[in-house]
Amino acid sequence: MQTLTREACADQDARDPLADLRAQFRLPAGTIYLDGNSLGVLPAATAGRVRQVIEDEWGEDLIQSWNKAGWITQPQRVGDKIGRLIGAGPGQVIACDSTSLNLYKVLSVALALAKTRDPARRVIVSERENFPTDLYIAESLARQHGFTLRLVEHTEVADAIDGDLAVLMLTHVNYRTGRMHDMRAVTAAAHAAGALTVWDLAHSAGAVPVALEADEADFAVGCGYKYLNGGPGSPAFAWLHPRMAAQLDADQSWQPLAGWMGHAAPFAFTTDYRPAAGIARFLSGTPSALSLAALECGVDTVLAAEPMGGMQALRRKSLALTDLFIDLVQARCGGHGLSVQTPFEQGVRGSQVSLYRAEGAYAIVQALIARGVVGDFRDPGILRFGFTPLYVRHVDVWDAVEHLVQVLERGEWRDERFHQQAAVT
Amino acid sequence: MQTLTREACADQDARDPLADLRAQFRLPAGTIYLDGNSLGVLPAATAGRVRQVIEDEWGEDLIQSWNKAGWITQPQRVGDKIGRLIGAGPGQVIACDSTSLNLYKVLSVALALAKTRDPARRVIVSERENFPTDLYIAESLARQHGFTLRLVEHTEVADAIDGDLAVLMLTHVNYRTGRMHDMRAVTAAAHAAGALTVWDLAHSAGAVPVALEADEADFAVGCGYKYLNGGPGSPAFAWLHPRMAAQLDADQSWQPLAGWMGHAAPFAFTTDYRPAAGIARFLSGTPSALSLAALECGVDTVLAAEPMGGMQALRRKSLALTDLFIDLVQARCGGHGLSVQTPFEQGVRGSQVSLYRAEGAYAIVQALIARGVVGDFRDPGILRFGFTPLYVRHVDVWDAVEHLVQVLERGEWRDERFHQQAAVT
Repeated sequence: MQTLTREACADQDARDPLADLRAQFRLPAGTIYLDGNSLGVLPAATAGRVRQVIEDEWGEDLIQSWNKAGWITQPQRVGDKIGRLIGAGPGQVIACDSTSLNLYKVLSVALALAKTRDPARRVIVSERENFPTDLYIAESLARQHGFTLRLVEHTEVADAIDGDLAVLMLTHVNYRTGRMHDMRAVTAAAHAAGALTVWDLAHSAGAVPVALEADEADFAVGCGYKYLNGGPGSPAFAWLHPRMAAQLDADQSWQPLAGWMGHAAPFAFTTDYRPAAGIARFLSGTPSALSLAALECGVDTVLAAEPMGGMQALRRKSLALTDLFIDLVQARCGGHGLSVQTPFEQGVRGSQVSLYRAEGAYAIVQALIARGVVGDFRDPGILRFGFTPLYVRHVDVWDAVEHLVQVLERGEWRDERFHQQAAVT
Repeated sequence: MQTLTREACADQDARDPLADLRAQFRLPAGTIYLDGNSLGVLPAATAGRVRQVIEDEWGEDLIQSWNKAGWITQPQRVGDKIGRLIGAGPGQVIACDSTSLNLYKVLSVALALAKTRDPARRVIVSERENFPTDLYIAESLARQHGFTLRLVEHTEVADAIDGDLAVLMLTHVNYRTGRMHDMRAVTAAAHAAGALTVWDLAHSAGAVPVALEADEADFAVGCGYKYLNGGPGSPAFAWLHPRMAAQLDADQSWQPLAGWMGHAAPFAFTTDYRPAAGIARFLSGTPSALSLAALECGVDTVLAAEPMGGMQALRRKSLALTDLFIDLVQARCGGHGLSVQTPFEQGVRGSQVSLYRAEGAYAIVQALIARGVVGDFRDPGILRFGFTPLYVRHVDVWDAVEHLVQVLERGEWRDERFHQQAAVT
């Protein structure tokens, strides 16, 4: 454990082949930001690019920019860039709307397909610990279409893959624990049982290597404002395996949010809906040119790692950072009632580390924020720290734990001001 | 007709009490912009405000801005401002997602309510000439829920209100013809027949006075990027009559796109969905802070007319501009095969004028654009001109018609380059 000094951490940073990528961001002074799993840091390019969209494309060229500036093809262009990060080929990904809405679209289509294949299968399985919006959307669709949403613990997923299963809907990396599923193995098991899979990549895209097409996943969605650095409420994305796209094309399948941008010929203004081919049918209303431009800048910050090894290189650094954090917390925070919730095993760990403390977890997070170390709190008792290898350094990990040690040893978190709950946690 | 000289137009502008509102916009030099019904002009405040959101709120304060900068309440705050333009009280409007998606939400709820009231009523009536995305969404919901979508001509709407009607879904001002429905009378007729109404205000909000609550409408949606000047692909809005909100609350009704932001307690992260009260249940995914900030700047440009009489004053000017355009086209373009598609009667006219020409309409629009007069084309043969009283002057109308006369008399539109079709028309 040679890195367990600040000097060793600085040495690691000096030898980090990805170190220059940090210069792509506008990191606030005096902040160690360990919340890129909630909202990624502002890329340096974003403000200028969005200004260009506003002042030049919108301000000067107005509606002509739908053609001239390519606003109309933005969802595909940005989607293709995201595809490079998640193992999806060109034309397979579309960037639009929110994760919730994209999940509604793909899960609807998955349920319809499952029903066609075998009307007797009426179970959607997901994890009780899945991000709530996914569960709400699944619950809504289950009610509408006569399916049962069955929620299980992560350890029970394998057993829940049975002959009743229509669709397995999982988030690849869990938002609270940072635990990661084996996409290939779980998908193979679901397929062997005759079921379809829907994957949420909210905490995966830009965070861990994903190979959607090679792993034979059926449908996927993901978020733009976490590890893709697209900005607050940025558009999300949706993906279809080419096999699924071919099937939907052959069936002329609709997705329910059948807005004009997902029409085969939006500007023919026909009375009847006819779905566009492939993933384009998952577009709905008019795309947001400003938000998509910001998302593209964010995605570009991750693609900038391609010459240095791309997602594989980012993964190596991410694991080094999360290993370091876990080691330091164990070595330095003993006796303070903290336990590590995230798996020690690298193969099932995302790019975050969650700690648990029965008492005062919320206040400890607030006390850390007051010291400039930004993580977040999730009920019950979870202190959540995200490690974005694009901009987090080994010394940041060292310093964050040093602050944590001080907050705990000095009992700073007992201060009343750290116990006031905000609207958004 | 004293205004039928350019001098008289200039004189009208000199006496225009709303003239100063034009300074709120960054109008491109050398352009007469008559397409605010497609994409409103850039407000002068937008670039700076969006930069502030990006650089200060996102860049410096990061996730803390959900609370500190009020990102979390933006959909309500911007919604309340829109409410002032459409006769809706505080807390009745929410700004989010696209018009298509919001229509899906409100129409779903309307159909569910209609079914509860009278399961035998299974007809949705709309106009064949309604904007296609509305028809596609209605068709999708009709298929899902066993309703029939019946499309009629605008002259047939009154007759289509019968005992089979569950929901009457109309766009208040037609996108192609500029014809406006009498919301109060049509709603009263629908209610008398036992049906619910859903209104699309895409070409009304910020364009004509609307009194949703007073006119007893049930549900409404609208667009942010036309007369509200919110920018390309800006968030849209949704509205519920307080009577409907009370009903949905009493029934604990869901809207199908049940994302976490429409949950009664989004940050409790519970497994089960419980809808938020009133209009807030129509939120779904995470709101876009950038896009909502731009929309707010756009809405503010319309609210700036409040001290001068607000929407009533804007309406007076709008009618003066469209009257002038119609008069000038009739006086000066005779013999060129143009006919006016928009009603001459002020009471049923929106804020646009559509002309029809059997041949060359697309090319005439392109030739005008080459001269700096921006309108747009809609199949078949429609030349569409929007008049946004916030920034269009009487002299602009004069000059636009002068260009039209020259394009026609010189046969400029016959030039081959004006016949090339673009992806987006």
